[in-house]
Amino acid sequence: MSVQATTLDSILSSLKTLSINAANVVSHAASTSPESWKEALSSSSTSTSQNATKTLLFKPKTAKTAKPYPVLIVAKAETETNTGALGKEIDQKEMRLAKEDLMTEFLGATKDDISPLSVSTANAEEGSHPILVVLDESLASSSDSFALHAASSDKTIFLTGQDVQKYLQSTGVALKVIDFSKLGGSAAPAPARATPASGANNEAAAAARARHAEAARIPEAELIGITVRKDGDFSDWYQQVLKKGDMLEYYDVSGCYILKPWSYNVWQSIQTFFDAEIKKLGVENCYFPMFVSSDVLEREKDHIEGFAPEVAWVTRAGQSDLEKPVAIRPTSETVMYPYYAKWIRSHRDLPLKLNQWNSVVRWEFKHPQPFLRTREFLWQEGHTAHLTLDGAAKEVLQILDLYKAVYEQLLAVPVVPGVKSEKEKFAGGYYTTTVEGFVPTTGRGIQGGTSHCLGQNFSKMFNITVEDPEATEETRGKPEGRLHVWQNSWGLSTRTIGVMVMVHGDDRGLVMPPRVSQIQVVIIPCGITVKTTPKERDMILDTCQETANTLQKAGIRAKADLRDNYNPGYKFHDWELRGVPIRLEIGPKDLEKNQVVAARRDTGVKANVSASGLADSVQKLLNTIHDDMFKRADETYRAHRKVVTEWADFTPTLNGKNHVIIPWCEVEACEDAIKDRSARVANSDEPQDERAPSMGAKSLCIPFDQKQYPDIAGKKCPQCGQAAKRWTMFGRSY
Amino acid sequence: MSVQATTLDSILSSLKTLSINAANVVSHAASTSPESWKEALSSSSTSTSQNATKTLLFKPKTAKTAKPYPVLIVAKAETETNTGALGKEIDQKEMRLAKEDLMTEFLGATKDDISPLSVSTANAEEGSHPILVVLDESLASSSDSFALHAASSDKTIFLTGQDVQKYLQSTGVALKVIDFSKLGGSAAPAPARATPASGANNEAAAAARARHAEAARIPEAELIGITVRKDGDFSDWYQQVLKKGDMLEYYDVSGCYILKPWSYNVWQSIQTFFDAEIKKLGVENCYFPMFVSSDVLEREKDHIEGFAPEVAWVTRAGQSDLEKPVAIRPTSETVMYPYYAKWIRSHRDLPLKLNQWNSVVRWEFKHPQPFLRTREFLWQEGHTAHLTLDGAAKEVLQILDLYKAVYEQLLAVPVVPGVKSEKEKFAGGYYTTTVEGFVPTTGRGIQGGTSHCLGQNFSKMFNITVEDPEATEETRGKPEGRLHVWQNSWGLSTRTIGVMVMVHGDDRGLVMPPRVSQIQVVIIPCGITVKTTPKERDMILDTCQETANTLQKAGIRAKADLRDNYNPGYKFHDWELRGVPIRLEIGPKDLEKNQVVAARRDTGVKANVSASGLADSVQKLLNTIHDDMFKRADETYRAHRKVVTEWADFTPTLNGKNHVIIPWCEVEACEDAIKDRSARVANSDEPQDERAPSMGAKSLCIPFDQKQYPDIAGKKCPQCGQAAKRWTMFGRSY
Repeated sequence: MSVQATTLDSILSSLKTLSINAANVVSHAASTSPESWKEALSSSSTSTSQNATKTLLFKPKTAKTAKPYPVLIVAKAETETNTGALGKEIDQKEMRLAKEDLMTEFLGATKDDISPLSVSTANAEEGSHPILVVLDESLASSSDSFALHAASSDKTIFLTGQDVQKYLQSTGVALKVIDFSKLGGSAAPAPARATPASGANNEAAAAARARHAEAARIPEAELIGITVRKDGDFSDWYQQVLKKGDMLEYYDVSGCYILKPWSYNVWQSIQTFFDAEIKKLGVENCYFPMFVSSDVLEREKDHIEGFAPEVAWVTRAGQSDLEKPVAIRPTSETVMYPYYAKWIRSHRDLPLKLNQWNSVVRWEFKHPQPFLRTREFLWQEGHTAHLTLDGAAKEVLQILDLYKAVYEQLLAVPVVPGVKSEKEKFAGGYYTTTVEGFVPTTGRGIQGGTSHCLGQNFSKMFNITVEDPEATEETRGKPEGRLHVWQNSWGLSTRTIGVMVMVHGDDRGLVMPPRVSQIQVVIIPCGITVKTTPKERDMILDTCQETANTLQKAGIRAKADLRDNYNPGYKFHDWELRGVPIRLEIGPKDLEKNQVVAARRDTGVKANVSASGLADSVQKLLNTIHDDMFKRADETYRAHRKVVTEWADFTPTLNGKNHVIIPWCEVEACEDAIKDRSARVANSDEPQDERAPSMGAKSLCIPFDQKQYPDIAGKKCPQCGQAAKRWTMFGRSY
Repeated sequence: MSVQATTLDSILSSLKTLSINAANVVSHAASTSPESWKEALSSSSTSTSQNATKTLLFKPKTAKTAKPYPVLIVAKAETETNTGALGKEIDQKEMRLAKEDLMTEFLGATKDDISPLSVSTANAEEGSHPILVVLDESLASSSDSFALHAASSDKTIFLTGQDVQKYLQSTGVALKVIDFSKLGGSAAPAPARATPASGANNEAAAAARARHAEAARIPEAELIGITVRKDGDFSDWYQQVLKKGDMLEYYDVSGCYILKPWSYNVWQSIQTFFDAEIKKLGVENCYFPMFVSSDVLEREKDHIEGFAPEVAWVTRAGQSDLEKPVAIRPTSETVMYPYYAKWIRSHRDLPLKLNQWNSVVRWEFKHPQPFLRTREFLWQEGHTAHLTLDGAAKEVLQILDLYKAVYEQLLAVPVVPGVKSEKEKFAGGYYTTTVEGFVPTTGRGIQGGTSHCLGQNFSKMFNITVEDPEATEETRGKPEGRLHVWQNSWGLSTRTIGVMVMVHGDDRGLVMPPRVSQIQVVIIPCGITVKTTPKERDMILDTCQETANTLQKAGIRAKADLRDNYNPGYKFHDWELRGVPIRLEIGPKDLEKNQVVAARRDTGVKANVSASGLADSVQKLLNTIHDDMFKRADETYRAHRKVVTEWADFTPTLNGKNHVIIPWCEVEACEDAIKDRSARVANSDEPQDERAPSMGAKSLCIPFDQKQYPDIAGKKCPQCGQAAKRWTMFGRSY
């Protein structure tokens, strides 16, 4: 029988009892080694530099029949723990690292999540397991903060060495503090050094980060709430909101995340809408295998060049090496088009419009970010073939309109539709259209979805031809009488969900747009006290459930939260974290007045609403919330699209978290120059990372709506002074 | 400018002109090497043994400015083609294998699909490309049949050597017949040997197969139709029906297939139905990554043992080897349950009911079969956790009922629900329930979908516990006060589609069950002749389109086939191949009488139907077709479930393409014995392959409906004579 593991809650509760401040619990990718822990910590946007620790369980030699006598060593990561010398000191022989099953048996922990916090009053007391904790003196006496796993390898808590000692003492476990540097036979410990928590590691930067982190903290946040402000530490905020809002769970393969129902439902709402719309356009769904042979993958050189470094290869099945490794699709152009060549025999087979709902894999080595940059992601990819460029071009825009509708009508997220520059277009395509979103908090743009016209590039490569229906007597049946088809491809991914969260979320958590929220209305019984009679109580609870039923019948996704182990305050908080658009409160007074109290998640505004015709009022309110959310986001985005005509204004405007609209020459070299010049002069007083604010601006799109800007005639490109062609939106981006 | 490749149609048309009989075109997995071609041919159920060939393109040295002078060698696979000696013979220097781009340039072919049939009148004539074909004398003079690729590497045609020569001559290409065995400097050719087209390679078997193939042939089948009878050569029939019925396309990664819209739509219909039903049960959808770390995958030993040999491993990304290879999920128990341990904190978190729609990979090395055994397949996998066994057990059956509904109410396929024997249950689970289908043509059973109760096996392994809500004062907070949750998992895959095709299809192609057919009604204009006036013609076409619109408005998936390049006969045939449930014919006389002619695909019965109230009549007819299809299949299945109580009757009954219901002892050793004993005495007069009729029977399920059989009390197991426990269904199976 193994002991129960400590949980985060039990740890926090113990620390609270000891008056140890431990608000700073960081969630990150699960770690399986000291290296991956360090990496996970540096990836999470934890701010202050922290000292690493190690926790090791040893099993000294005992008589076979005797109970094992485990020794848990807790030390600074860099302390050399000479176990031979330690054994002498504590009078034990042949200290060997314990196997994992012993760890589980003694502490309910695994090698990945073990920490001094795995010791608890409960497992220390379970008398059948005598355990000795040996604490590194240099740690025990330190007032520096140390990183320790908090119940699981994907959480880290920061405690001073002194607090670690205090905690261990409180559990009643047998504890020895030992100065390893003085143990006979051991080398002197390496000089203590800070483990930098992020790429930049000079002291000034660390100090800046510390100030920054302090400023971002939300002092009143309860432990289960969001502990940093959105505009304080955006990256940490984003991770907390996703995790605590129940959108996702971190996963033990780096760059991969679990989509929990709360986020998957958003994706399913998008699927339902988009799938019905494309079927109206004559698109059919199909499924191609996830595996691609290398021959096929590498057929279109320009195209594959962009993907090759990120392609995941299967080389082995069971114990057998495959004769030829197969790739996992990073996208399906080269997978599908050999078959298009086969299936398209005549112009009567056109247009051919196929779509897939699948997942693709791009094994990026850049810093992963949930929904925005993940190694596997869900998407749809449409691939169509047309007889004429006109036919293809028309569809490119029909699809882009649908992408815009997904963002604006479902997610209440404004986007700017336009065309990409030559530099930014899809590799191997003809031109790329895009809907571009905006994250106000960082001032960065984000590509929302792209609809590509591939032209005839792929049809030439894959020999997808039909006889020209207008071929003449002479050319019919000859190569000159054949046409290469015009192709499109278009894709929208679960990135949509990340954009939605970044745009709408606030310091209290998610704010879900009503049309994609799995629960649109939560109904919470209120005003039940010790004085409430059972009959009154039942009436309140029944009314809550009946209200939910009534709303459900009207097609509204409503839920009554009748949990009896939480008070209304907890429930309010809980549903706010998850961003449910409307909370209805029903108490004794509301029953009397035949009303409910409706609280909007987006604004916090509360109002009394008559219980008669409630479904109608709620439906209207949901629409109002959607419209208001979109309007606010749209106004913000518009306010951050600044027309600039002088280069001097370019980078300062950018640094003001804006997109910059310039009359642009559309020359690629100029685009490179803009990126360079806008990168060099970035702000230097904010914390830097390699991805973010210091990077230069790139062209995001050339907006279709050019008429909103002054006549381009005679305008010069502010960067190079050449004649401008179109107004173009530049910005930093994800 | 490269030349146009020949197509199957152009080849067949040329052969027809030459009066060369070439009805025998075999489709198979695309091949990329001589080995894979041989394998593909032996896997496809081609009957007679065939001789392999090779086709090689060489480019002799020419002056840089001169046009290349390609030499195409066509020879028996085993002929040694000494190019040095050949070069002397044809007065060319340094013959080198041509690169693929030259192949494309000269013949429009790739190295995989090149064959003498790549040469055509058209590309032989295109004077800018002089080409010399060198034909192996031993091939050219032979009246044996040889395997040649027909326009693509996934098709093989069989021609005599003499016919190959005849064909090449007809193209007008420069042709030399050379006896390679007499060329100076070359070794004598290896003795010609037949390349066996299937595993069994003795002559008697080959002769039996040839007789069998001849008997299976459908003499009147047009080339685009199904060329073998369903009850003649079932395996070939199945492949042809899927391919020609537009359900799938073969793919160049072995064991993987492309689901075309016609089949994917069936899957989407199943998804729509099942997803709505499980949501009513409180199941939520989520998505876990496709990648699994080896640690996690291998956690539950019993479970992984069943999957380990089939797990695909990603070991490389781009050019970098991964530090730790990651597996692609073969199923998600061990992927998901560590998180269940994390998410389930209290009995209030139960039941936890999650489902995924995804694909899984099982890299089987057995013979793949579309839909039935594929290396990647689409499915849903539900994973739920319950406080009590009762709760879990109830859900197991709710889900099984839904699986039954998918088969019976959507696909019109009867199934027998029951529980698996201990031997056949899910590895690592507690018990497995199943719906078992039946393929009458082969008399084999097929597992349709399984709903497993996992018991507490996984919750103990992954430590998924909650505090017992009925814990006493003493046990609360202690290990004894905690309960391991009860878990289920359940899955239904695209195998459903294969079963549907096998059960309903006939010699004319697919027969689609109305509720899952992408097109339910096709409307075909008829009776348009040279005498028809344009006005009459338009009226007929308009009426067809209007009828389609009317039906669509009533929610019926209707399509008017107004293609003007095909006659009604062709269209009838085309839609019959695809199995559209109802064909409506509208001609001049129908217009006069305000009627349409409705033809049922399942029975071929035609009837006049009034054009008034057509949507109602059609909807009723669709339901009737569904009911009739189910009824026929159900009667057939029932007629093939035979109660047997004496061992002497067991194998003969099995050999009569029946399932056998016996009063069974439920002892595993007895099950093994039944398999052994029923295998040994299989029929010997039908063509054998390693998978099929000679294999022994296994237990398919213990049907829930035991009352249909006599009282089990006092019955003995016919195999071992021990007391029988329950009536159990045995059979050969897929």
